[in-house]
Order: sequence, then C-alpha cells, then structure tokens
Amino acid sequence: MVHSPTVALKPPTYADVERAAQTLEGVAHRTPVLTSQSLNKTLGAEVFFKCESFQRTGAFKFRGAYNALSNLSSAHKKAGVVAYSSGNHAQAIALSGQLLGISTTIVMPHDAPSAKRAATEGYGAQVVLYDRYTEKRDEIAARLAEQHGLALIPPFNHPDVIAGQGTAGKELFEQVGELDAFLVCMGGGGLVSGCALAASVLSPACEMYGVEPEAGNDGQLSFRSGKIVTIDPPRSLADGAVTTAVGDLTFAIMQKNLKDVLTVSDQALVETMQWFAQRMKLVVEPTGCLAAAAVMQGGLAIKPGMRVGVLVSGGNVDLASYGQLMAGSINAS
Amino acid sequence: MVHSPTVALKPPTYADVERAAQTLEGVAHRTPVLTSQSLNKTLGAEVFFKCESFQRTGAFKFRGAYNALSNLSSAHKKAGVVAYSSGNHAQAIALSGQLLGISTTIVMPHDAPSAKRAATEGYGAQVVLYDRYTEKRDEIAARLAEQHGLALIPPFNHPDVIAGQGTAGKELFEQVGELDAFLVCMGGGGLVSGCALAASVLSPACEMYGVEPEAGNDGQLSFRSGKIVTIDPPRSLADGAVTTAVGDLTFAIMQKNLKDVLTVSDQALVETMQWFAQRMKLVVEPTGCLAAAAVMQGGLAIKPGMRVGVLVSGGNVDLASYGQLMAGSINAS
Repeated sequence: MVHSPTVALKPPTYADVERAAQTLEGVAHRTPVLTSQSLNKTLGAEVFFKCESFQRTGAFKFRGAYNALSNLSSAHKKAGVVAYSSGNHAQAIALSGQLLGISTTIVMPHDAPSAKRAATEGYGAQVVLYDRYTEKRDEIAARLAEQHGLALIPPFNHPDVIAGQGTAGKELFEQVGELDAFLVCMGGGGLVSGCALAASVLSPACEMYGVEPEAGNDGQLSFRSGKIVTIDPPRSLADGAVTTAVGDLTFAIMQKNLKDVLTVSDQALVETMQWFAQRMKLVVEPTGCLAAAAVMQGGLAIKPGMRVGVLVSGGNVDLASYGQLMAGSINAS
Repeated sequence: MVHSPTVALKPPTYADVERAAQTLEGVAHRTPVLTSQSLNKTLGAEVFFKCESFQRTGAFKFRGAYNALSNLSSAHKKAGVVAYSSGNHAQAIALSGQLLGISTTIVMPHDAPSAKRAATEGYGAQVVLYDRYTEKRDEIAARLAEQHGLALIPPFNHPDVIAGQGTAGKELFEQVGELDAFLVCMGGGGLVSGCALAASVLSPACEMYGVEPEAGNDGQLSFRSGKIVTIDPPRSLADGAVTTAVGDLTFAIMQKNLKDVLTVSDQALVETMQWFAQRMKLVVEPTGCLAAAAVMQGGLAIKPGMRVGVLVSGGNVDLASYGQLMAGSINAS
C-alpha cells in the first residue's frame, strides 16, 4: 500500500503563488506574450499567447518543480527527491535539482525515448528504469522515497507545484492586464488551477477554462459532475494531458474557479501546431496547442472585442514525428 | 535596354537608418532577442539572436519595403509601385502598400507556390505572372513601371531599402549593447550593409560578417577581390540568398564596413534549422539560419567571453518541405 504524498495537504492560495513568484524571480524566464494580428482580425478579438515554450526546459513545468524543491525541508534537500515522469516534469525536476544542489532520481519507463532520458541525465538526474508492463512507477517511486528518505514530488497534485505553475498566469496578467477569458491546457490540472488562483485576484471577472484532449476528458467529466472521475488511460497526441484523473487539490481549486472544461480533437491539435509553425513561427508541442485550438476551432464562443489569454504550455517535440505532422504525412490518431 | 533604378543613387548613411527607425516606429515590430543558455555554455560565449522571424510578414524585408514606400514622391505614391519577387520582398511590399494606401504590383513567376501568391494577394497586391523560361522579370517590371509611371522598388540595392533593413541592427545594439561580432545573412547585401551602418556608430569595434550559402558565394568572391563578381544562378536551400551578385550600393558599404564574408553548407543549414526547432522552439527558414550556422558550425572562430550578434532573418517556410527537413526524410541538396 502506497501512501499518497498529498495526504493532509491543503490547496494553495494566491499568497502561495506570490511567494512562488519571489522564489522564481531571476531563475525562471519571464516568458514573452505573442499575438497574431491576422488571427485577431479574423476573430474580432484580442488573443494573447503566453509562451511557456520559451521557459527553461521548454515547458512551464520548471516553475512548479523549482518552487517545490526550494520549499523542501533541509532534511529532504540533503536526502534528495524522486519523481516519476517520462516527460517535461522529469526535466524540470532534474534542472531544478541541479540549480539548487539537490540530488534527483527520476523513475522512467525502460522504453522512454532515449533523447528524453539523455536530456534528463544531462541535467544531472539519476534515471531509474522500470518495465511499464510489469511494474508500477508510483510504487517504485514511493519505495525509493521510503528507502532513502527522499521527497516524492508529484507532477501536479502538490501545493507548491500548483503555486509555481500559477506564476505563469500571474505574469500574463501583469504583462497584458485583465482578460475576459483565459484558457489553459489541462492534464492533472496543476497549471490551470494555479493560473485560476492568479486570475481570482488579478482579473476577478476573467472566465477560466481548462482544455483537454477529447479522448482524455476526465477533467470535464469531473468538473461537470462535481466529483473526481477516473477514466481508462487515454490515447492522444497531447501526451502531457493523458492523465486518468485530476488531483484532489487541483480539483478543489477548479471547482471553485473554473467556468468550464472544454475538449478538442487531435485533428484540431495538428492543425493548430501547423498554424503556430506557419503563422507564428513557433514550435509548439501537441499539449501546448490545446488552449489555442479551443479558441481557433470554435470550442470557445468569441464575442467581438473580447480579450482572451491562451497558455502555450511547451515546445518539446520529437523532431521526427513533429516533422511528419508538419508535412501532413501522418494524421492524428 | 532597361534602366537601372539605382542610377545616380548614393549609399545611405547611419543618419538614414535613424530616419528609417522613426518611420518604422509603431509600424514594424521591435522583434525580440533570444538566447540559449546551453549554446552559450557550449561555446563559452554570449550569442544574441535577433529574431526577425517575428517581424511583420515573417521576415526583416518589411522594414526596407515600408521605409522605401514611405519615402516615395507623392506622384509615385499616387501611381503605385512595382516589384519583382516570389518571396519575402513581395509580401513586404504588398503589406507596406496596404498600410500606406499605395497600390502595389508584384511580378512573380507563373510557377511560384500558390501559398506565396495567395499571401501576396491577401495583402492587396496585384500579381502579374511571367514565364521564367521565356521572360525576364526585371524587364517586365521595368516596362510596367514605365507604362504606368510606377516606382520600381528593388529588393536590396536601394538607399531606403538598405536604411530600413539597418533598423534591425540598430535595435539589436539598443537591446543588448555593444558586440564583438555580428553575423548577418547575405543575398544582395541589403540587410548586412544596413546593419553595418548601425554597427559603425553604435558599436564601432564590432566585427561585421556577411554569411552566404557555399553555392552562392558571389559576395565572398566580390568582397575578397574588391570588385563585384557575378556568378551563375546558384542552387541552395537558402532561397533568400541565391542572388548572382551584390549591388553597387550594398557593395560600397560592405567594402568599407565588413570584416569578411563567410559561407556555410546546406547541410549545416538543415542542422541549424533542426537546432532552432528542438532547442529554441523557433521555426526559422533556411536563409534565416545562415548566420547562426556560421557560429555553431565553426565558420567563425569564437573566443571565450565573446559577445556575438546573430541575425535570424525570417521564418517563412513551406510546411511540407519544412516538415521533411525536420523529420530528416530529405537531405540537403
């Protein structure tokens, strides 16, 4: 039986986001906000893209990871941390550990792309491989945590992680002022709930939306039914949003602060990736296209003059499959 | 016999660049300067990428085109302008005309990609097609100019075009201060000569380099021999730099202000495009990779602590071939 690392933890507040911003000052990049005049003309609205693809490690995850590691007890800082991820959370934890002098262990499937493993090791993390068909990564991580006294840093359901991610939203409001709507991609809900905390203080009238892949609509089911729904592992190009359930902490914030949770198809993600490349000159990973796709493909009803924030969460792609998606030689699954 | 439009024109000075900057204020984007911590660590230097891929129309060409159109006589403003280009200059002229209320005619090969033709027409230009096997575009443009009293705006060999492009360099020095070296891609030399004017005043000790594709080394041959050399039409992925000769105005500035002209292979361009996508999350067209490739592939000898400016000229790509280059499914020619 593995103990949840979030037992007895409370959802963070905006004060935690403010503290996280101080922690991240001069460490995380203040990422740019980009706009497209042609899109704004087409929509009759103003859309602001907050580009976390330019964040360190190529995704917003660095904010939450660095904040969480900074807030560890000195015993845990000395012992080190463990996390399980084959994606952006892994690199974020690894780089944060390197910067803070905290040793990091990442539990990764044995068939993870070698480039991701190399990147994580490049930031100084120790990678522990597991067989995804016979072993459970959370159990391995929990065992390592127990055996070596390590702090387990979950990818989203942790107050310091949520507060760290919220600094992306805080920055956006500081950069462009209040908004009518703000759309944020959603897997476990760490980013959207953190950003919702920022909106609740910096732009109280702003309607907050989470955006998921159609195939992985657990957050929508949960939000609309009022209780956390767990789905089977979904298949989507948006590999950062194929969680099976949101967390109890993220869900508490979502319930209180979101207007709705929207979904978009994988085909819409591909078209949005192509639009980003062609019109914005940006490489955006599929998960990073979720919020933009909801704006451009009609998931959100745009009213004239509306000011809309869109979180572009990351730009880490496998060049081979990215190239194929750009060339149109493979379709969305 | 077609009269050159540059007869009796003198090379611009830095004062012209300053005037162009005033003209472009609030019209052209002040494009961002991006850096890569991992590249800087690898090189032991500081490299500043001036990203004109984020300029209006996706390339620096807008600066020169808008400046040139703004400075036309009122008779020419009324009559309109003509230009020949199948690439970034066409869209730059078209958008500038639309913004200034000047009618524009673009002479384009009949087999130009339909997307480029559509983009140019989308900015309100009239497109005149010609058969590239039986007709000469400069003669057609000159005839149109004569028949309708249009001003012919050449792509690089014009004082107002050079001064406009120079504002990109001026901005870079304002954004990051003085530099030890500044590398700029080079076709006809409009951008590098404009930037050299900016460097000569804002960072006098900065060594200026033009960078060409290996196959199109007319600028290198000209610079090193001291007279303009014309080559056969070169073949390179860098389609914005396949000119056969630099202009007399650009050459005069180059001779006085450049340290050297470097060349890079098409294979280096592909690797640099991939690096931009993977590490910087930027879509950069092949021509836009010339200067960066010279820095990353050893064309320029980097000394420890050196501060190096790199002009990223544009991000306009055909998605199909871009995707193939990213996926590695086609090689450099």
